[in-house]
Amino acid sequence: MASLKVLNHPPSPSEDAEQLHKAFSGWGTNEQMIIDILAYRSAAQRNSIRKAYKEAYGEDLLKSLEKELTSDFERIILLFTLDPAERDACLASQSTKSSSSNWIFMEIACTRSASALLEVKKYYHSRYKKSLEEDIAHHTTGDYRKVYEAFAHITCSVQLLFPLVSTFRYEGEEVDMSLAKSEAKILHEKIKDKQYNDEELIRIISTRSKAQLNATFNHYNSSFGNAITKDLKADPGDEFLKLLRAAIKCLTTPEQYYEKVLRLAINKMGSDEKALTRVVATRAEVDMVRIKEAYQKRNSVSLEQAIAGDTSGDFKRMLLALIGAGDI
Amino acid sequence: MASLKVLNHPPSPSEDAEQLHKAFSGWGTNEQMIIDILAYRSAAQRNSIRKAYKEAYGEDLLKSLEKELTSDFERIILLFTLDPAERDACLASQSTKSSSSNWIFMEIACTRSASALLEVKKYYHSRYKKSLEEDIAHHTTGDYRKVYEAFAHITCSVQLLFPLVSTFRYEGEEVDMSLAKSEAKILHEKIKDKQYNDEELIRIISTRSKAQLNATFNHYNSSFGNAITKDLKADPGDEFLKLLRAAIKCLTTPEQYYEKVLRLAINKMGSDEKALTRVVATRAEVDMVRIKEAYQKRNSVSLEQAIAGDTSGDFKRMLLALIGAGDI
Repeated sequence: MASLKVLNHPPSPSEDAEQLHKAFSGWGTNEQMIIDILAYRSAAQRNSIRKAYKEAYGEDLLKSLEKELTSDFERIILLFTLDPAERDACLASQSTKSSSSNWIFMEIACTRSASALLEVKKYYHSRYKKSLEEDIAHHTTGDYRKVYEAFAHITCSVQLLFPLVSTFRYEGEEVDMSLAKSEAKILHEKIKDKQYNDEELIRIISTRSKAQLNATFNHYNSSFGNAITKDLKADPGDEFLKLLRAAIKCLTTPEQYYEKVLRLAINKMGSDEKALTRVVATRAEVDMVRIKEAYQKRNSVSLEQAIAGDTSGDFKRMLLALIGAGDI
Repeated sequence: MASLKVLNHPPSPSEDAEQLHKAFSGWGTNEQMIIDILAYRSAAQRNSIRKAYKEAYGEDLLKSLEKELTSDFERIILLFTLDPAERDACLASQSTKSSSSNWIFMEIACTRSASALLEVKKYYHSRYKKSLEEDIAHHTTGDYRKVYEAFAHITCSVQLLFPLVSTFRYEGEEVDMSLAKSEAKILHEKIKDKQYNDEELIRIISTRSKAQLNATFNHYNSSFGNAITKDLKADPGDEFLKLLRAAIKCLTTPEQYYEKVLRLAINKMGSDEKALTRVVATRAEVDMVRIKEAYQKRNSVSLEQAIAGDTSGDFKRMLLALIGAGDI
């Protein structure tokens, strides 16, 4: 469930575009007006505003926003205003230059629907003139990878990330219980033998439908006494195991995965604005209501209070608006 | 270039459906009429005929054809009448039960366009309630695979087949020449060290665009003195190497790959009707004109003559019609 509050009868896209243009004019920028418009429009509406803006003023709205805004507030406005497929493609492309890339690739691969992921790939083709898969594979194999291995354990992660990103996963609800049983057994055997990057284990996790995986993990839990993610905690410092556990969470209970990302981002000394921005901008229109519930449950404090206590100014106002705690 | 001869002004789909229904009625089946209709209609037209037939007679045309026809003629009529995405999905699904599956998976992965391959995956979801990727991965890993390893060297082929099938390849014509140069060097090093299933080698072949690969292989040829497919002939009996060479051919010169499949199918004692049928049914609307040119050049005999000498009856008439050598 989305936390985004979309107006029932919003102004027309050209009226919104005009108001935004006014917000950029004169002395200083009217940040509040930018929030009041962009944080209360759906992806389709924001797209129409961008088109109307381009037609009226001859410049991409994103470009204008980039000129007017700075720092964390700029980042969240730009990221949120983008169309979801475009946003994910940008996040992925930026990630190919960063060492925390694997997490973002994994999030995109495991929490988006098959059709949404396909839209990301199509946008990636048209924008970057290459495939998402080749960039991820290139980034996570060979010489290029060795640069990063010094400070991150990226070895083997291509074996996991590539199939996760590239599979066009089936999304139906049908479950084959005997398959769930036999594959739970395979997973348990591999994990018992510490063969965490075994090709069968990765094959199951990266290709089976989410409904099927859910059944398999349930079967694992009831047959072998532990949740699979618990059995994968053998070596807490192992980056590959961390990524594997996170992928399993993203595939089955994404709200719990995102709750943890937010918790770590907020509790961190100085807080991790990039992570906070990414989660809020990408989930506000998807499942932020569930993420807020998970947050409240785990931290005994609401996400609104946690964000309000940890951020300030326009950045704070925008975050709160997107998680449904702004007033309009 | 397609060899299929499509009528400029064909009868309406319901007239065609009626004629087909007549062909099934009375004493015996009118095979010639079936050929005269189905072998001279485009995929879109055949689809419309199927719809019209279903509306008029309440049965899927494919079902009726199945009842009326037998043997090789049945197989080619059914296979050709299917929509391309549906046909590939059926071929792939049947392949998961056969030992020559790897070749068909590879053909579908490497010779179809990215968008055509995507249609196959979508059809696979809707028809089989699972993903093509999971079936291929399941078929080519683990215990299931071991059954086949006794009579075919399938080891490692999942490492190649899975990324080939799952990548949504970029299809633009842009080429990065410095990348072509550096990746040609990587390929040459891996091949020199006989690391044929090295992850970087597979990453390059399975993720780069066809235009980019073409540039890389050209660079390989001019820098290192041999075509890459020649250097991959180290061990002619190695099934993995055979598959890798075939994949490279399919990605860059599919007509040469198909010429060879046809040559082997026709020259075989008793000929390989299944392969003949598959190639003709899948390429008649794509590049059969080029395949015929390659065949003539390599065998000093036309494909028409070769097929006419090797097959007979309605099967022969249908094959010839599809390769553009029938008369109407």
